[in-house]
Amino acid sequence: MNIAFIGLGNMGGKMAHNLLKAGLNVSGFDLSEIAIEHFAKAGGVVCESPQAAAKNADVVITMLPAAKHVKDVYLGENGVFEVLKAGSLCIDSSTIDPQTIKDLAAVAEAKGIKICDAPVSGGTIGAGAGTLTFMVGAAAQTFQDAQPILSHMGKNLVHCGEVGAGQIAKICNNMILGISMIAVAEGMALGAKLGIDTKALAGVINTSSGRCWSSEVCNPWPGISENAPAGRGYTDGFATGLMLKDMGLAIEAAAQVKQPILMGGLAEQMYQQRCLQGHAGLDFSSIIQQYLAPENNE
Amino acid sequence: MNIAFIGLGNMGGKMAHNLLKAGLNVSGFDLSEIAIEHFAKAGGVVCESPQAAAKNADVVITMLPAAKHVKDVYLGENGVFEVLKAGSLCIDSSTIDPQTIKDLAAVAEAKGIKICDAPVSGGTIGAGAGTLTFMVGAAAQTFQDAQPILSHMGKNLVHCGEVGAGQIAKICNNMILGISMIAVAEGMALGAKLGIDTKALAGVINTSSGRCWSSEVCNPWPGISENAPAGRGYTDGFATGLMLKDMGLAIEAAAQVKQPILMGGLAEQMYQQRCLQGHAGLDFSSIIQQYLAPENNE
Amino acid sequence: MNIAFIGLGNMGGKMAHNLLKAGLNVSGFDLSEIAIEHFAKAGGVVCESPQAAAKNADVVITMLPAAKHVKDVYLGENGVFEVLKAGSLCIDSSTIDPQTIKDLAAVAEAKGIKICDAPVSGGTIGAGAGTLTFMVGAAAQTFQDAQPILSHMGKNLVHCGEVGAGQIAKICNNMILGISMIAVAEGMALGAKLGIDTKALAGVINTSSGRCWSSEVCNPWPGISENAPAGRGYTDGFATGLMLKDMGLAIEAAAQVKQPILMGGLAEQMYQQRCLQGHAGLDFSSIIQQYLAPENNE
Amino acid sequence: MNIAFIGLGNMGGKMAHNLLKAGLNVSGFDLSEIAIEHFAKAGGVVCESPQAAAKNADVVITMLPAAKHVKDVYLGENGVFEVLKAGSLCIDSSTIDPQTIKDLAAVAEAKGIKICDAPVSGGTIGAGAGTLTFMVGAAAQTFQDAQPILSHMGKNLVHCGEVGAGQIAKICNNMILGISMIAVAEGMALGAKLGIDTKALAGVINTSSGRCWSSEVCNPWPGISENAPAGRGYTDGFATGLMLKDMGLAIEAAAQVKQPILMGGLAEQMYQQRCLQGHAGLDFSSIIQQYLAPENNE
Repeated sequence: MNIAFIGLGNMGGKMAHNLLKAGLNVSGFDLSEIAIEHFAKAGGVVCESPQAAAKNADVVITMLPAAKHVKDVYLGENGVFEVLKAGSLCIDSSTIDPQTIKDLAAVAEAKGIKICDAPVSGGTIGAGAGTLTFMVGAAAQTFQDAQPILSHMGKNLVHCGEVGAGQIAKICNNMILGISMIAVAEGMALGAKLGIDTKALAGVINTSSGRCWSSEVCNPWPGISENAPAGRGYTDGFATGLMLKDMGLAIEAAAQVKQPILMGGLAEQMYQQRCLQGHAGLDFSSIIQQYLAPENNE
Repeated sequence: MNIAFIGLGNMGGKMAHNLLKAGLNVSGFDLSEIAIEHFAKAGGVVCESPQAAAKNADVVITMLPAAKHVKDVYLGENGVFEVLKAGSLCIDSSTIDPQTIKDLAAVAEAKGIKICDAPVSGGTIGAGAGTLTFMVGAAAQTFQDAQPILSHMGKNLVHCGEVGAGQIAKICNNMILGISMIAVAEGMALGAKLGIDTKALAGVINTSSGRCWSSEVCNPWPGISENAPAGRGYTDGFATGLMLKDMGLAIEAAAQVKQPILMGGLAEQMYQQRCLQGHAGLDFSSIIQQYLAPENNE
Repeated sequence: MNIAFIGLGNMGGKMAHNLLKAGLNVSGFDLSEIAIEHFAKAGGVVCESPQAAAKNADVVITMLPAAKHVKDVYLGENGVFEVLKAGSLCIDSSTIDPQTIKDLAAVAEAKGIKICDAPVSGGTIGAGAGTLTFMVGAAAQTFQDAQPILSHMGKNLVHCGEVGAGQIAKICNNMILGISMIAVAEGMALGAKLGIDTKALAGVINTSSGRCWSSEVCNPWPGISENAPAGRGYTDGFATGLMLKDMGLAIEAAAQVKQPILMGGLAEQMYQQRCLQGHAGLDFSSIIQQYLAPENNE
Repeated sequence: MNIAFIGLGNMGGKMAHNLLKAGLNVSGFDLSEIAIEHFAKAGGVVCESPQAAAKNADVVITMLPAAKHVKDVYLGENGVFEVLKAGSLCIDSSTIDPQTIKDLAAVAEAKGIKICDAPVSGGTIGAGAGTLTFMVGAAAQTFQDAQPILSHMGKNLVHCGEVGAGQIAKICNNMILGISMIAVAEGMALGAKLGIDTKALAGVINTSSGRCWSSEVCNPWPGISENAPAGRGYTDGFATGLMLKDMGLAIEAAAQVKQPILMGGLAEQMYQQRCLQGHAGLDFSSIIQQYLAPENNE
């Protein structure tokens, strides 16, 4: 089985590496010299274009920054669909809007190509350790076909529904996450200002109806959640810039189906504000700094 | 030991009942005839005023609608503080702003009276079953003194810190709850509109970073969380009007200490909007109806 | 001089009619049979495609629903740019994002074609009466060239800056409008609920620092502004669906340049909510209904 | 005629001065030594308490920071109402919630004392120049009685309705103002980021539907509105801390009548955030700094 892997960046590079470690044949492409070099060192076959990588592939995996790159790789001039044979399988692990993958699936179907969306959660650490969660949107058979390959890169394979459902699950989850993180930031900062011990407060919340992933696992107040970014200056986490990207996808998808999301609309702009102020690289839980007097943020 | 119980409504009546069942002497007062009748039937000694109930009391428990009632009962003309002897204990289980109880505590201290705030969670069901959670703000010794009494009415006694800390913990928790419920409502409604199966979506969220009490235990989409109000037309839950009250306390407390809470400020108004539209009595998870086309809300 | 007019709908049809009334030669295209019929009756030359209309044109005017249509007409297969001669002038009066027109301008420049964006305000009434305001983004010379043509369709020609500046001006203005309308709705509804006479309240606002177009010219409370949509059931105004479109453009443009707009983000979703609830066709000032008890909205 | 003036601060001191300049007898009280000194120098009779000042007064004017001070002065121990004779007139020019003045009016009426609320706009400059606008809530006869006195301190006397209507008008106006200022800040910052000349943008807005007091008279972008605070580092304007106070009154009044104000709720918190970040003293138009990259705010 020949695999083509398009997009060998922070995430894709590590995912491809896990495929190579499993002994699979992987041809790859990326625009970055460094990405290519790492991939070659790990035993990957470097190709000059996405199409070249896909020429003899049975499976194509894409891990790209945005919808336009995905469309370009599959449908663009010298695109992957031009050379793929019927019966081959495409797995797009990029995080993009659901409509784009549905549009691609319509084209693929006409050519007898199987396709699924499989965005991930788990970050670069999960990508490296092969413990990613894949949220998969696919026909039942395609999901079965994709499982053996995905299992080399992740440990949680969730079948969310038809093509697009993986993207839908991811953006809905991440929108809830983005809002609830702000909720916890506001609650912790308010409690602290009112004079309660923050550990006692977090103790109450985490055994009560306010508990959420953001209060338990990634509490924005330093020293509450073990190993959370808040304890190390908000570094090495889920970057605010990436949270902004996901919130943007939620807003865009909502607009396409004319669905209002009031808190989501506000939250997107609040993360945008953090990025404007120079904090795009910090973990998104650092948004709590918006709720502290300047001297507390130094 | 003589206990005075002021405020025998939906919550207080059931709490007093549990004290009576435990064989304690309880004198009580309420403005409502029906409340008084229930209390008398359960073996309580009916008094003509809060002061009359408190006259020979070792312990006073108050469960009242708002800060003004609490202030009036303790400090007003013919107030409880006038007749309480030094060394007696006051437990205020009302949900009010933290500053009021701190102000009362200063007065109590001067008279040698011990006082604590002990707001609850668990609703009328928890009150009836004696399984409430008490969030207690008190000096260490006062907390110890209060424990045996509280344990007849609840099963979870959390010492949150000094006087006021119980209220702080409650309003911070409930503010996070109020916001995260809206987040889940927006996420579920968006997912449904985008075409994902809502059970599959909830499955992803509840095993991922979007999970929270509102997504797991009280999901606003019907048929997701077992026994949640969403499954019975949003009845018999935590009324939107009560959530509004708690959000209002958060906003008020935040204003007192000049602490911004952007999402909280918006969320309060969104619950206010629900109440204006006639839904104050429905569970607060019914806010999801704001995100559905009218035909889905019939 | 030959003019090609692409997009003969509610706005474009009336604008083309004014050009014909001025004795100009206008060839036109639209997908709608009815639009074409009206145009022909008014003396226009009906063409089978945008390209056919543009073939011998000195000036091309486009009035289309969204950026994709504009791109398609100019750049698509059988697009207008393929047949236009160097030195000709294109005027796009559609309301779209600024980046699209800038991208088109880069292509046009390479072909020696002059182009400007000239979105309008004034609605269908202004289009009919020839009293539109044009917000023009163009090089100085192009603006001069466009003036004689635009002056047949509008009475206010504002040169906002280089290509794109017309769109920027329009979306910034309309975003402010969308927010300030909600502000006035909230202020009027609050005042009414507090018991002040709404005419007296509007009198104060309109002579004070709260005054704005939305309070003076288009007050959302019925009976305040003469001839405002509020006085006729919110009909015949600026449809909520169109306000939503413009808010969406603002959000999109803001995301492209990574600019936060918190109130804008919330306002977009509030208009989206109105549309979901079935009011897309009402004037956007009808958003005041969100702030009134149901019995007041019947 | 004897006038008692309680509250001789930045505003009250200047207002009292204008009464003295008009040759009226004014007795006054303030807690501040400096305020008293200025008042004495201007010819005022200094009194030791509000009650002392009111003892022989025909008219009492109060200009105090908050409702609790107003209540205390009129109703508290040694309050003004204790010594005022029937038929005298009270004018409260403080900005407070409407309910407080209504409650005071009920007490006053029982004693045969006339009372009105008359909050002002115009700031310390207007107070000094005697050009304030008074928004008056009063019975028709009381308004007539108050006019000759108010006319020494202001030039615009607006009768808004019954007692309380002055406060209602002011808080509704100022809430609209607070929101529309943010709208303009967002619009100007967005336009600038998108590349339009800010003067050209303001030109379009101010002749179009986005125009408002905040865009015309007090544009937050420096160099647009002549003499606006934006042109002098946001000094000498309407302090953000005062805008926050007025937004707080709107939220409080809205809560009392159960009226939702979504944008208002968010706006209050945004001004609160500005104050937390140390900008309470700057003109409220400085909120535009939240929308600029940090290097632009130095």
